[in-house]
Amino acid sequence: MAKLTKREENYSQWYNELVNKADLAENSDVRGCMIIKPYGYSIWEKMQAALDRMFKDTGHSNAYFPLFIPKSYLSKEASHIQGFAKECAVVTHYRLKTSEDGKSVIVDPDAKLEEELIIRPTSETIIWNSYRNWIQSYRDLPILLNQWANVVRWEMRTRLFLRTAEFLWQEGHTAHATKDEAISEAEQMLRVYAKFAEEFMAMPVLQGVKSENERFAGAVETYCIEALMQDGKALQAGTSHFLGQNFAKAFDVKYATKEGGQEYVWATSWGVSTRLMGALIMSHSDDLGLVLPPKLAPIHVAIVPIYRGEEQLAEISVYAHQLRDELRAKGLEVRYDDRDTHKPGFKFAEYEMKGVPVRIAIGPKDMEKGTVEVARRDTLEKAFIAQDKVVDHVLHLMDDIQSTIYQRALKHRAENTTSVDDYESFKEVLEKKGGFVLAHWDGSAETEELIKQETKATIRLIPIEGESEAGVCVRTGKPSERRVVFAKAY
Amino acid sequence: MAKLTKREENYSQWYNELVNKADLAENSDVRGCMIIKPYGYSIWEKMQAALDRMFKDTGHSNAYFPLFIPKSYLSKEASHIQGFAKECAVVTHYRLKTSEDGKSVIVDPDAKLEEELIIRPTSETIIWNSYRNWIQSYRDLPILLNQWANVVRWEMRTRLFLRTAEFLWQEGHTAHATKDEAISEAEQMLRVYAKFAEEFMAMPVLQGVKSENERFAGAVETYCIEALMQDGKALQAGTSHFLGQNFAKAFDVKYATKEGGQEYVWATSWGVSTRLMGALIMSHSDDLGLVLPPKLAPIHVAIVPIYRGEEQLAEISVYAHQLRDELRAKGLEVRYDDRDTHKPGFKFAEYEMKGVPVRIAIGPKDMEKGTVEVARRDTLEKAFIAQDKVVDHVLHLMDDIQSTIYQRALKHRAENTTSVDDYESFKEVLEKKGGFVLAHWDGSAETEELIKQETKATIRLIPIEGESEAGVCVRTGKPSERRVVFAKAY
Repeated sequence: MAKLTKREENYSQWYNELVNKADLAENSDVRGCMIIKPYGYSIWEKMQAALDRMFKDTGHSNAYFPLFIPKSYLSKEASHIQGFAKECAVVTHYRLKTSEDGKSVIVDPDAKLEEELIIRPTSETIIWNSYRNWIQSYRDLPILLNQWANVVRWEMRTRLFLRTAEFLWQEGHTAHATKDEAISEAEQMLRVYAKFAEEFMAMPVLQGVKSENERFAGAVETYCIEALMQDGKALQAGTSHFLGQNFAKAFDVKYATKEGGQEYVWATSWGVSTRLMGALIMSHSDDLGLVLPPKLAPIHVAIVPIYRGEEQLAEISVYAHQLRDELRAKGLEVRYDDRDTHKPGFKFAEYEMKGVPVRIAIGPKDMEKGTVEVARRDTLEKAFIAQDKVVDHVLHLMDDIQSTIYQRALKHRAENTTSVDDYESFKEVLEKKGGFVLAHWDGSAETEELIKQETKATIRLIPIEGESEAGVCVRTGKPSERRVVFAKAY
Repeated sequence: MAKLTKREENYSQWYNELVNKADLAENSDVRGCMIIKPYGYSIWEKMQAALDRMFKDTGHSNAYFPLFIPKSYLSKEASHIQGFAKECAVVTHYRLKTSEDGKSVIVDPDAKLEEELIIRPTSETIIWNSYRNWIQSYRDLPILLNQWANVVRWEMRTRLFLRTAEFLWQEGHTAHATKDEAISEAEQMLRVYAKFAEEFMAMPVLQGVKSENERFAGAVETYCIEALMQDGKALQAGTSHFLGQNFAKAFDVKYATKEGGQEYVWATSWGVSTRLMGALIMSHSDDLGLVLPPKLAPIHVAIVPIYRGEEQLAEISVYAHQLRDELRAKGLEVRYDDRDTHKPGFKFAEYEMKGVPVRIAIGPKDMEKGTVEVARRDTLEKAFIAQDKVVDHVLHLMDDIQSTIYQRALKHRAENTTSVDDYESFKEVLEKKGGFVLAHWDGSAETEELIKQETKATIRLIPIEGESEAGVCVRTGKPSERRVVFAKAY
């Protein structure tokens, strides 16, 4: 298996090669659309399962709304259309026919839709159009729904997982009687995302709100989690929006209050996508390949026999099967790899590339001594472990690897978070070191835009809590009440 | 809650009302596209979970391929295009822009795609286009993949779940080195579907192959399961296709054999869809609403307190919470419904409409006597059960309801399966009784088409096994070797 380009040589190329060699995904012939391969998809399935459980534990149910959105729906919420109606896939016809020469198929000009349909870039409009019929009274509230779906945004520059024309995601859409309840919901879901990122992905995240410039089109407030990748660039890993009454007003969704009045309904929406796969890859992986947190690893343990001849293999296999079964009984996914078509070294490299947390090698010497060799993927450390202790040892490693890679990512973030107080330092840090830059900002969209043009850095978030600190904007010198988090971002 | 139209008055209307009143699904504003509501979706999730486990237990992995298929792909397999390229959603543009008056959005004529994209009606073409790159040698085979996805077929006449423009499904796509292995796979997946239908949906199915007329576009053989609905019409519940080398040839997918030659790869595909929801509804439900098999019921037990005043409610609730927790500990989904906004009679009707298998009512008299009233949804029988026996009783009911509704459906099918030997009887049975009609057929597509035109009945399947029996075709009098299964169908 050919080696990866090293991260320090070319991070972007390293990423592309890794996604390919670890069998996670590949580009399809359809511009910007990816194929998620079985190994990559099995990681996504683990993410989905964990998130879905958290959504249900917080009272949400799943539902499914149409892929198609009538073009006119997009126009109903004024700022939403600015954000989403531009680059999208438009269905204009509903039939093909055989060409006159009989050799190909062409679009049938007689089968033109009266109103074009847009492939959903997000589903607020079609869902709020339904909520109008579902909500009459305060008794019908709250509505706490989520859907797992594919969406399409016609991005010009795409990268596997990070930015693709079609991607998979979940989108929560909730309806509430009061503003406070909707804000609590948006904040709760942000905490759910942060907990998922940290506990399952082992990826530390900052929590905060977006500046007006970076807000979701149609939102009153956008909450977000931001993670720092190994190359010092930020990645937005999830957003939760307080939508106010914007969609209720656009789609005329009112409810009868307990007191007999009529009020517009309050809304939230929140989503994470297959982009999280990109975040996961870039949080932990190294020059040998993927490093996966055990909680999301499709295979926890790979067992590789080292042998000469059938007799040795047979002896090792008896023990290996027993070990595999014991580990499976503890809830681990285990692969015993006795393929005779590949050498142990090839297998080791393959499991390293695929980020399998623990590899166990068993040779004839091990069988004599009653040991096995256990290698952990995160630190690449190897140890000989007595066979009667190996199950406990592996279980311990699962916890230890999960926490070690989290701590490593946390340390990386700490080392790459810099407070600066003047614009020269600001630019220098962004240029030479990267990472999160904590700086004062005067709060204006104009200044934010100016800084973006001059440095390519954007405000990743404004911390929700944390101390306020008087200071002056690094760019304009105007007064500021708190530092915000700048970074170059994916 | 308003009552349903009775089945014998208008079966079709009964179905539509039930889907609506049981909160399963509704039509959206987008022609032919449905909204699957949370209760309906939770049943679909249970189906997905059971099927997904069965697919994985038979060695399959999930993956994800693009929503869009380049138009030219559809032309590559000659018979496939005949079946699928006609009624489909066509994406022609990738951008909208604001109209000149600034009041609406219009399709940007400058953003026309060079090649139109079709929303996948099924994914053989795009998947086999990828398999060409994935398969070089016999070592790369078999490939055993499945995907859960939405697909679109621009149907003119749609009905919730049974026939919708967009629907959710799974599609398995496998690649094999030999013909025999591919046939075994197609047959295996048919058995998986049959087992799922019978064990989870409690829906008996016939297994067989389709006649050439009814075969999947591009298949060499289409295996299918067929169920009989309460109104005597058949419903195709799942299909598994042996595709021969058709797609391998169309997309030039060859592999190097062990012996060093080059061979085209053998293929299968197989799928079931949200149509199964329609089949489930029409297999068991009655004039009071849905009847669900416990294995697919989102709620197994509803507990309703019957009380006057807070004091009685408090006393009942202490016991009800304890009962709920005990049932949950046994793995059941339980809802204790102490809403004070609705009367017990309303709640009873609601749980009947939603097909909850068991309802438990607890009143003050029950508390005195140490009993509860247990009602089962399938037979509507009620019984007073001692409180110390109720958990065991409910667990027993879960098995009993699952098997009772299966037996009831099996009996219905037996009573509505008729062997006929002449065309007059054939037409009379189809006209007056409906159901499956076992009759001899001469094996020609012309006769099949003639019978279809004259009676609206189609050949649902040709039994794979079962005795051959010499006879003569009911329509033409020509010789026949076995009876085939005719019916009018959904």
